[in-house]
Amino acid sequence: MILGVMTDVEMSAEVENMNLQVLQSKIIETVRAAKEIKPLVPSLTNVVTAEFVADAQLAVGGSAAVQYLPDEVEAMADMCGAYYFNFGTLAPFYEETVQRALKRLNKLNKPWVLDPVAVGIGGLRTCLLLLFREYPPVIIRGNATEIISLAKLWELTVNAGSCKIHGVDTVDSTESAEEAAVLLARFIGGAVAVSGETDLVTDGKSVLRASGGSPLFTQITGAGCSLGGVAAVYAAVAEPLVAAVTAVQAYNYAGARAAELASAPFSFKTMFLDELYLMKAEAAAEQKLEIYPCIF
Amino acid sequence: MILGVMTDVEMSAEVENMNLQVLQSKIIETVRAAKEIKPLVPSLTNVVTAEFVADAQLAVGGSAAVQYLPDEVEAMADMCGAYYFNFGTLAPFYEETVQRALKRLNKLNKPWVLDPVAVGIGGLRTCLLLLFREYPPVIIRGNATEIISLAKLWELTVNAGSCKIHGVDTVDSTESAEEAAVLLARFIGGAVAVSGETDLVTDGKSVLRASGGSPLFTQITGAGCSLGGVAAVYAAVAEPLVAAVTAVQAYNYAGARAAELASAPFSFKTMFLDELYLMKAEAAAEQKLEIYPCIF
Amino acid sequence: MILGVMTDVEMSAEVENMNLQVLQSKIIETVRAAKEIKPLVPSLTNVVTAEFVADAQLAVGGSAAVQYLPDEVEAMADMCGAYYFNFGTLAPFYEETVQRALKRLNKLNKPWVLDPVAVGIGGLRTCLLLLFREYPPVIIRGNATEIISLAKLWELTVNAGSCKIHGVDTVDSTESAEEAAVLLARFIGGAVAVSGETDLVTDGKSVLRASGGSPLFTQITGAGCSLGGVAAVYAAVAEPLVAAVTAVQAYNYAGARAAELASAPFSFKTMFLDELYLMKAEAAAEQKLEIYPCIF
Repeated sequence: MILGVMTDVEMSAEVENMNLQVLQSKIIETVRAAKEIKPLVPSLTNVVTAEFVADAQLAVGGSAAVQYLPDEVEAMADMCGAYYFNFGTLAPFYEETVQRALKRLNKLNKPWVLDPVAVGIGGLRTCLLLLFREYPPVIIRGNATEIISLAKLWELTVNAGSCKIHGVDTVDSTESAEEAAVLLARFIGGAVAVSGETDLVTDGKSVLRASGGSPLFTQITGAGCSLGGVAAVYAAVAEPLVAAVTAVQAYNYAGARAAELASAPFSFKTMFLDELYLMKAEAAAEQKLEIYPCIF
Repeated sequence: MILGVMTDVEMSAEVENMNLQVLQSKIIETVRAAKEIKPLVPSLTNVVTAEFVADAQLAVGGSAAVQYLPDEVEAMADMCGAYYFNFGTLAPFYEETVQRALKRLNKLNKPWVLDPVAVGIGGLRTCLLLLFREYPPVIIRGNATEIISLAKLWELTVNAGSCKIHGVDTVDSTESAEEAAVLLARFIGGAVAVSGETDLVTDGKSVLRASGGSPLFTQITGAGCSLGGVAAVYAAVAEPLVAAVTAVQAYNYAGARAAELASAPFSFKTMFLDELYLMKAEAAAEQKLEIYPCIF
Repeated sequence: MILGVMTDVEMSAEVENMNLQVLQSKIIETVRAAKEIKPLVPSLTNVVTAEFVADAQLAVGGSAAVQYLPDEVEAMADMCGAYYFNFGTLAPFYEETVQRALKRLNKLNKPWVLDPVAVGIGGLRTCLLLLFREYPPVIIRGNATEIISLAKLWELTVNAGSCKIHGVDTVDSTESAEEAAVLLARFIGGAVAVSGETDLVTDGKSVLRASGGSPLFTQITGAGCSLGGVAAVYAAVAEPLVAAVTAVQAYNYAGARAAELASAPFSFKTMFLDELYLMKAEAAAEQKLEIYPCIF
């Protein structure tokens, strides 16, 4: 090796290190921007975890509101910084609600985030998720099974994954959803976040792998739903990839902190929200994160 | 100054001091009566904070129930001590529900409380809030922006306030809503409570200003909604002004206590409900309170 | 008394002691089986306590999901281990949802659990509860007033109880609901659990009386709803009587533990869910339990 000349591997490592530093400073900016701007981020979200979603959005600086009615969403779209859609529970009139919301948001060029909970169950849910193929969100947040199933529903070519729906929980590993996540991210021109023991975030060009958090997240209702809601708050103040990874890292930080303070899931839930609120911007940025180029 | 003869200012201060003492003893009676009578206070309230509303109502002695269906509300109205309406989230069939509930409550001469969350957003919400102009509640509870907006919607002459809706949060100060609150209180012949850093309660004759609580109330979902629900419990056992101020002072007491015990919003939420439950009647009465005559 | 020969009373006591030991070992098996099998147990449950229900189901090992739409329930029925129905809050389209769910569950021979909250209030609720007469659940869980009212609605001959509905709270003692519980259990060929200061569980042959828990259960929203949801998790892995009594004893254990750790209802709520999650199978089995033959 000639002195001062780097090998490809060294160069690649250096580039990624620079990318990582840039990303970390963007995470810091994003956490701070949400607290300063306090964006209004309405949700059409399931009734089970709506309070958790709203509380988590407040914790990171957002202003939360939930509504279901077709005749409300356009006014909310006009006022909002970003919008969050989560289809855990549905009512018959959601098709009009979602259609009107997406059309207005699209016209206003505002960002929205999708959590495709329980994709594959029921005709209305499928119909709603196909609407998002026409009006792509800036971020999709789901577990591995949901991400794989959504990629298949949207007829993106995916080979991996079982696509076996088991209620609202995943039966696939984060790794097995990587191709689906990358294809979805390219299709929407935004970012996809896959939650799991290791979290994966991709914009279709790079793949970020994050870890941290706590296994206790799987023992409480709404960890994934509220992560989607928080990603929507950050999407109001940052580009999709940065917003998604900031939300993921905020959860990894606050989850790990809460797990130190609580020994069981439900005090963990309270502690987690407290720690999310108390979190310094640097703490989210310092969470373990690795960047890889896409292999698909 | 002649010995033994008081100036106008001194007399006025003395009158107010007497009024304050009377009010304080009524607050004590109200807190105790709710725990003894345990009134059933059903709610048509938003799905996000329904659990918080019900838990807060239980904490002060009420019996809670939530229902949305037109064919249930008349039976509930027949059994109830008071009723609570909060329009944070709506479903298409609420117009019939609210109409039937108000007609029955009106016929039975039972009290109801209104929280006009998100007034101005959507046609159905406007329609519902206009129904309450025909069937006025005994108490209206809202933030400054909501109170100003409702007064305008009901075409009461109000000069103050921005009336700029920003989701479900206020953009106006409590002071700027004073005229609207006074006019609404006179119109309904009941009491209006405006929540904020300083709380304002008025029956259109006197204006009460209370303080205490904690800024953490603004960092959790449902503080305002649940305050409305608690005001409805007290409205089942006391006259409107007393019921409204008792609820406000209970929140100021329990909020301040909880803020001493918790350092972040979500442990605060739990501690607040605990302290509301543990609260002695005297503690609510001893919270700082000032009485002024209406200047409008 | 001849040596070695027991009187009827002694024999009866011995039989019951043996039954109790058998039951205790079945409780241990049930608690463990739920954590190993992790059955998916969807709910059509009220919006007020849906999060509490889901969290409690997760705490004992179940996988939770809530849905309301007719077009979703068949897919959920196909995937589930058991189903939970709780009618605290209703929407107009529930009749089709419940009909389709019950038909599919019945066809698949899967167990379902009913919590007849607020029986007697409104036409749709009555209609839904009459559907369950045609498609009987394996377990009914309610307070004394609800159990008596349901037995009357189903035209089973019951003499006891006031059948006076006061919102969602009971006005009758557990004892006064014993006949209704026994008749309902025989009618459904399953188990009925009546919650109260003393809990009663019966399969129409034996009556089990359990105690423990905490009076704080009556001070929080959703204790009964979530008990029904947990009974449904256990019904996915055990016969109805064992599933019902396991759920009741889990609540009695975790409630008593939580009451030692918390001084007020809302920290109790968190502690209770924590203790339910941490509970050893033996702890549920060791809770005080008495077996009596049916006297009706």
